[in-house]
Order: sequence, then C-alpha cells, then structure tokens
Amino acid sequence: MTPRKLSRGVAVVGAGMSGFGAFPGLSTRDLFVDAFLDMRRSIDQGLDPATIEALYLGNFSSSAFEGQGFIAPLTADAVGLLPKPSTRVENACASGGTAVREAMIAVASGLYDVVLAGGIEKQTDLPIARVTDVLATASDTQYEGPAGFTFPGLFGALATAYMDRYGATPEAFMRVAIKNHDNGAVNPRAQFGKRIDDIMAAKRAAAERKGRTIPDWADELEFLADDRANPVIAWPMRLFDCSPVSDGAACVLVVAAELAAQFTDSPLHIVGYGQASAGAAHDRADLTSLSATRDAASQAYAVSGLGPADIDLAEVHDCFTIAEIMATEDLGFFDAGRGWAAATDGATGRDGAIPINTSGGLKSKGHPVGATGVAQVVEVWKQLRGEAGDRQVPGNPSLGLTHNLGGSGQACVVHIFQRRS
Amino acid sequence: MTPRKLSRGVAVVGAGMSGFGAFPGLSTRDLFVDAFLDMRRSIDQGLDPATIEALYLGNFSSSAFEGQGFIAPLTADAVGLLPKPSTRVENACASGGTAVREAMIAVASGLYDVVLAGGIEKQTDLPIARVTDVLATASDTQYEGPAGFTFPGLFGALATAYMDRYGATPEAFMRVAIKNHDNGAVNPRAQFGKRIDDIMAAKRAAAERKGRTIPDWADELEFLADDRANPVIAWPMRLFDCSPVSDGAACVLVVAAELAAQFTDSPLHIVGYGQASAGAAHDRADLTSLSATRDAASQAYAVSGLGPADIDLAEVHDCFTIAEIMATEDLGFFDAGRGWAAATDGATGRDGAIPINTSGGLKSKGHPVGATGVAQVVEVWKQLRGEAGDRQVPGNPSLGLTHNLGGSGQACVVHIFQRRS
Repeated sequence: MTPRKLSRGVAVVGAGMSGFGAFPGLSTRDLFVDAFLDMRRSIDQGLDPATIEALYLGNFSSSAFEGQGFIAPLTADAVGLLPKPSTRVENACASGGTAVREAMIAVASGLYDVVLAGGIEKQTDLPIARVTDVLATASDTQYEGPAGFTFPGLFGALATAYMDRYGATPEAFMRVAIKNHDNGAVNPRAQFGKRIDDIMAAKRAAAERKGRTIPDWADELEFLADDRANPVIAWPMRLFDCSPVSDGAACVLVVAAELAAQFTDSPLHIVGYGQASAGAAHDRADLTSLSATRDAASQAYAVSGLGPADIDLAEVHDCFTIAEIMATEDLGFFDAGRGWAAATDGATGRDGAIPINTSGGLKSKGHPVGATGVAQVVEVWKQLRGEAGDRQVPGNPSLGLTHNLGGSGQACVVHIFQRRS
Repeated sequence: MTPRKLSRGVAVVGAGMSGFGAFPGLSTRDLFVDAFLDMRRSIDQGLDPATIEALYLGNFSSSAFEGQGFIAPLTADAVGLLPKPSTRVENACASGGTAVREAMIAVASGLYDVVLAGGIEKQTDLPIARVTDVLATASDTQYEGPAGFTFPGLFGALATAYMDRYGATPEAFMRVAIKNHDNGAVNPRAQFGKRIDDIMAAKRAAAERKGRTIPDWADELEFLADDRANPVIAWPMRLFDCSPVSDGAACVLVVAAELAAQFTDSPLHIVGYGQASAGAAHDRADLTSLSATRDAASQAYAVSGLGPADIDLAEVHDCFTIAEIMATEDLGFFDAGRGWAAATDGATGRDGAIPINTSGGLKSKGHPVGATGVAQVVEVWKQLRGEAGDRQVPGNPSLGLTHNLGGSGQACVVHIFQRRS
C-alpha cells in the first residue's frame, strides 16, 4: 500500500541542542532551556516564543532516571510555553524522532501552525548498572529479560548473526567507532570530543606519568582489539562499540511550509516521513536486518519520490556499531551484507559516497535517549545549511535523512529533509 | 485567540474496554486484547483489523508498574497490528485522553484514515505504598515531593482551599461518592459494582456473622462520616473520596468522518477538542479552580460552537471527589462555588440537569491511569447510542463531553462528541 501524504507541507525552521555529556546537578528542565535558547538563536528572523502553539516531547523515562514523571508540562513551563498543550511521546530510543513526527502531523492537521518538537533524557544520576536495568525494560521483559538479555547482549546477538551470515569481521565495527569519534572530535556539543588516536595518546601519557607499562599499540585498530584497552561487553561488542550513558536535550521548530519564510530563508522541508513497528528480537525470523527500518524507509522514500541514491548524508541510529552497519543496508545505501565492507572502505566518512553520522553519532556525540532523534535533525539542519564548521560535508548537500531506532528494532522513525534555497 | 479547527472531520466508530479491577496474572497486553475484542464487537458493520493504520497508546508507567517499558509496539503486536506505526503518549492521568486526541489529529493530517486510540495501566502488581510513590512522580518532585505531597495530599489541599472559599461541607464530597457508586453498581465493567448502601449492608452482615458490634449507621452519609468505616486519607479526603488502584484497558476506533458509514450507522463525531497545560500546584495563585480545564474546555466549546448548556452528559475526571466538583464548575456546568451545592442537590445524577459520570467515574468504575481517558469515551459511546442499559440517561442524548485531567491539573484534555443519527 502506498503511504498517504500529509495534507499540508511542513518545514523545520530552527534547531538547537544542549551539550551532551554528564551534567551533575542539572535536570532535564535545565538542559531543555539550553536547547531551547540554542534553537532560538538558530532562527534567522528571530522567534517570539508566544507564536509556539504546542510541544511534543520525546523522553524514554525521566521517572526512572530522575524521579520526575509527567515531564511534558513541566518542560513547557521551563521555557515559558504555558498554557499551550504539551505531550510526551515515547518509543524507547526512537522517542525523539517520534516527537518530530508528531509535531509534523499536528501541523499538517491544521490545528497548529507552529509546534516545538523536543527530546530530553538525564541518565547519569543513577549508578550505571541501574541505568542498564532501566534500559532493559525496553526489551520484551516477558521473554528476553528472563533469558538474561540487556541491550548490549541483544545487539551482540545481532552482530553475531550478521558476522555469521556475511563474514564480517570485528574490524568493520571498529572502523565505525573510529569514524564516529573522528566526527565527534569536531562537534563542540559531543560528549566525547576526542579521536580514538587522542584517547590512545592520552592513555600512553598517563601510563608514562605513573611509570606503568602499557602495550605499544601500532594503530587504532590494534588499540581497539586489546581486551584491556577495549574490553568485551557482549561479544563481539566491546566498550568502543557501545554508545554511552548521557544527559542532554534538543529541540526543533516545526511550522507550516507556507509560513517558513517568516522564520528563515533556508528552511528544511520535511519531504519524507515513515514510521513502523516490529516484534521483539526473540520473535524474529532474521536478526541481520531490521524490518522496522526497512518499512519506515520505504514509506519515506515513497512519499518523497526519492531513493537512497538521492540522499546526501544521513544520521543513523548507532546505539551500537553493528546498528550503524545494519542501518546503512536497511536504508538502501548499501546492499544487504555489504554495509560492513562499506564501513571498512571509508564510504561512510565525511568525504565518502554517503557520509553517515557526521555529528559523531550516538557513539561519540552521546545518546541521551529521548533527545537523540531530535539531535539527529539538529545535525542535518547544520549540514544542509552549510553551518557544520569543521565537520561540514562538501558539495553543498541539500537532502539529509534521519533514522531513529527504538529498542532492538521494535520501532523506527525515518525523516528526509530538503533545503531548497 | 480562537483555536483553529482540524482540516478534516473525525469520528469515533467503535469503542470497547476490558473489565476494570485487580487482575493478578494478567499483563497490560492481555487486558488490551480484551478491550480490542470488545471494541471490535461494537462496530456495527464489522471490522477487518488490517484496515487499522496506526496505534496511539496512553500509558502512565508500565515500566514502573509491570517492569515493561516501550509498551506501544508490544501492545500493537498483541492485537495483530504490526508493522503499523505505534506510539505511546503520556500526560500522567490524562494519557488516555491524549491518545484519543493524537489519533484524531493524525487522521485530520491526511496521513491515516483509520487509527486506534488505546489506553492501558496495570497497577495492582505493586504494593500500595509503592503505587503511591510511582503516582507521586507525576507531581513536581523538585518542589512538591520534598514537602511531603502525594496525590491524596495535593487534592486534600485543593479541597481545603475550596471549602474555605466557598463554604462547602464534606457532605458534598460524600454525595459525589454515593452517586458514582450508584452508577458503578449498574456498570458491569466497573471495579466496584456496589452501591455504598450495599457496602454498608455487607459490613453489617459480616459483623453479625463474627458477633462483632459496629455502629448502626442511619444512612450512607453517617456511614461515610464514620472515621472507622471511612478513614481520613488526607483531610478532608477520606477513603471513599479517592479513586482506587486499578488494572484495565480501553480503546476506540477513530476514522475520517467521511468513512464513518463504512463502520456504523451511528458514529460519534468529534465536534469539540481542547488541550491545555498548567504549572504545578505549588506554583498557582488559586487552588479552587484548574486553569487547564478552563482552557481546554474553552477551546472545545469555541471550535464546536457549543456551550455547557448544550451538553447532555459528561464523564469528568473524579480522581478524588473534589476533582469532580471543581470540574463541573471549570467546564461551565455550574458557576464557580456552586458545584458542591449542585452535587448535593442531585443535579449531576442520571436524571439530573447534567448527568456526570454515569459510568461510575474513576471513583467506582476504577482508574487504571492510562486507560481512564479512553474509557470515558467508551461510556459516552454507549450513552449517546442508547446502549448504556440500566444506567442509560433518558431523553435521547446526542452531545457528550469527556474531561481527562493529568496530575493535580498540569494537563487537561476535553472532547465533545455528537451523534447525528
């Protein structure tokens, strides 16, 4: 069935984010204020906040992470939006992309012209083991929990199946981590602003200061293959294959396309949009490809009349390195089973055939769950407007895609953005 | 500012719910299957589930209550909706009304024609004190939590302010409880299927069997004023002023108005809709009226061209008896300060001027948080179609209103439904 189109054009006219990282003492409300002010500064013609008519807020679990539920109206209050309607949406790690989608749908419905889509998460207040437990509630706890699965374990299983089927080697995963750290090193908002080379050098310098002996790694690959430098978390996923525990917030302003010029000369039109659900991992016939990604991408391509070859760059959901590789296949950038070779060959680098995760991705920019899908749009906003600084993709890109995945693939939201001027 | 209208008419063509109560051993998925089958049976022309294009699911905290987060795709899976998009929406106790609203907005956007709006909650697996803690995360935990507030305390404070300002007596609260138990006694899905008279009689019989002496209460009011029969929870709110801890699910099918005839000859058209946010209770100038209700109702009346005098019956959010009284004022059925007298005079009874909570309300039907706002629509569906059995409101009602409140009033969603044939 061909997906229907929205009855009204919708565009993004502003985008901003807080820094991503660990911020003791700051709540999600504080972080959202940072993101909101950053978004406001991004709007070329200025923004009167009174014109904002509603808020959709992506958040996985502020109640578990910071003991504060019912977060939407409190967040609206923090940025002066009361008494406007505010609604939290949740699709695990795809909550942010879902918020962007719901803002788009609400504008298309005719009910609003100007809607704020935001995302927040504050994970670092809890001990790390407890964070893993909270995240594990996003698996199927009736079936996967009793089998001992947490998310590193689930993605370890996907990676194992992928290696078995396609002959991929762990080097491909390491290449994803190296690239995303390279990108994050030139993103001032990233949680990890260091290349893996820099991390190696810092470890060497620290060892020298303390008079300790550490291996003389020849290069990043040798460093990442060292069980002590890069311990196995859930084989074949090692520490540097996993996105971190993060705090952060992001927001974008979504308006009716016909009003975009009131805000900016360079809006991003939302030309593609898709969302799909899938069964939990234990219930799937195939672990090497995620049907929710394929289904959501297929909708986004169909409504836009575009295909993967048209896309200039993409932010994909690299919660684990294997997830980035599978996403680049399921989105159609590479054939099934070829994503790992593409990652190894540099096709996904900033000057490659299809730059992937120029922001640093979840791996290096950080992964404050509910904010992630919105922050992906922030990166596309910067790239398509030529404002990405040292990580700017060459060639005046005009079409960017975002891919936001929930859980081990039970939900996926895809958007395609186009700059026309 | 006059709220804008949706660009497309939307109608409800089916509605169903599980029983509400305590169901050990059943998960929200199981309960939602019950609600879904009940909804399907309600559709006059039959329903092919394959025509459903998306799910919006209201839920406050399945992760805290049953250890299962990311509940939307699992719920979609349980009723065979994969791979359709599924999204959880959360606005504390207004999550269900929010799900109905988002389904309506999504149909109006042109993206879908047929959307399922559902709500679920499973609260009885946790010890009661822990349930109170989870619910308390819906207050402002930075300000209200440290002051010791839980929800009975917050509504006790609202009730105290109301009594102080308007001279209301506790009898008014008791009258609300008596009425709602009378209504719940003739609702087969209600958690408490007993009139308070019946509860008194049962207590007397039990005492006689055990040879114990209990007071010889003259009537329900004397029973409810007895500190042992009806203990104070947070003065002036006693046990019978509080809605219970509940499990349950509900869903309604929301479609484009022009397609409604394919499903039923008696659709309910959604002619009024409003949503508003407000600050937390500690931050309000006035505790005797809830601005989110006034704002949401004002939008719903404006877009429908209707006023409170046009409404034939309403389901309002009586999480505590004081909340029902305040809602009937804020919705405009009675002047400010007159709701308590109206409750005492019987104006809100099934044969009164404006029947309120013919379902039994949250008080007697039960309050599985995320399901509540959807179940309100189920009652209006039955009443406006003349299918409410022993609790049917006389006079062939055609206009019904639902009022779903979040927290102590930080969010409110109002809908007005009209039967035209």
